[in-house]
Amino acid sequence: MTDPPRGADRTEAIMRTTLELGQEIGYARLSIEAIAARAGAGKHTIYRRWPSKGALFLDSLLSLHQSDLDYPDTGDIVTDLRTQIHAAVDLLGNPPFGPLYQALVGEAQYDPQVAAALNERFIAPQAAMTVARLKKARDAGQLSPAFDLSLAMAVLSGPLYFQFLITQEPLTHEYVDRVLHALFNGMGKPSQSPSPDVDSGES
Amino acid sequence: MTDPPRGADRTEAIMRTTLELGQEIGYARLSIEAIAARAGAGKHTIYRRWPSKGALFLDSLLSLHQSDLDYPDTGDIVTDLRTQIHAAVDLLGNPPFGPLYQALVGEAQYDPQVAAALNERFIAPQAAMTVARLKKARDAGQLSPAFDLSLAMAVLSGPLYFQFLITQEPLTHEYVDRVLHALFNGMGKPSQSPSPDVDSGES
Repeated sequence: MTDPPRGADRTEAIMRTTLELGQEIGYARLSIEAIAARAGAGKHTIYRRWPSKGALFLDSLLSLHQSDLDYPDTGDIVTDLRTQIHAAVDLLGNPPFGPLYQALVGEAQYDPQVAAALNERFIAPQAAMTVARLKKARDAGQLSPAFDLSLAMAVLSGPLYFQFLITQEPLTHEYVDRVLHALFNGMGKPSQSPSPDVDSGES
Repeated sequence: MTDPPRGADRTEAIMRTTLELGQEIGYARLSIEAIAARAGAGKHTIYRRWPSKGALFLDSLLSLHQSDLDYPDTGDIVTDLRTQIHAAVDLLGNPPFGPLYQALVGEAQYDPQVAAALNERFIAPQAAMTVARLKKARDAGQLSPAFDLSLAMAVLSGPLYFQFLITQEPLTHEYVDRVLHALFNGMGKPSQSPSPDVDSGES
């Protein structure tokens, strides 16, 4: 019972240490050596499981995000998008996930393996669920039949990532609501009859 | 006439060297020392002018982007947005600017001074011109009066940055056209009368 942790316990200890150290000293200064030392693990143990600091960091970060990503389905698409995207900005806009995720996306600009893993393990599952929920909405007549579902992630998430990575202003529920309103109503000149208002659940 | 370059010439030589080395070895491995050595300048000369590698890199990169950012004004907002955003993706989607700009945005996730300078010197001027052009379009009845102009950059640029930084798929004119079509027509259920189609200049 006094052996050092093995298997799943050891993996978990290494990932927890990665996140702790990442928060303390920042991603840039994080090293496999420092993680190994604090976690009481050998460097080789870490490298056997993770090929790079980026890969270890991605695994560690995604282990934080245990919540069910699946969409609610109240029957109203705008309500459900609001709920889902409010939860996403609560995660992105706050520690520990927010700053660590920002560092991961920074790393994805330098390391194509991190970028590929980020897409495969974090972005693609979100995209699949978003498109599935939007398809149901389209079938229920709540979405423009002309809307190109393959753009759903780009137009819904793009404005959040722009604020998160570029302007780096706070992500708020109010911002999400304004974006949804703009996206649902469109930038174009409205038809003569009034277009539906989507900025609140009330109607 | 055999003195080493001074003043503006020296500044230009240092910035040119920064971009050359950046393309050769990547941003992460770039150092002030290596730039100084190749440019035949002293490290102190560089540090007197630029407080960090990120600041030098930003200046160097923006010196590449000499084209007039101002919008065309043909009288048709969709045509003008297409022209402007096609030019933007030609820049972002190709070397030398594209990969170097991607590295800069990566650095902006770690260095708040780089993020602030990127916004002040590159993003804010684009935002001002975009909003000015959209205001004219709104006055000309080509834009929904309900569209929140303060979101213009986020909804127009967000989908491009999402593709550029997150999915890292190629940025094409065809992608821009599909995004503009989606944004102008809106995701929401159309009113009974048909909404205007904006995916081409023809009508």
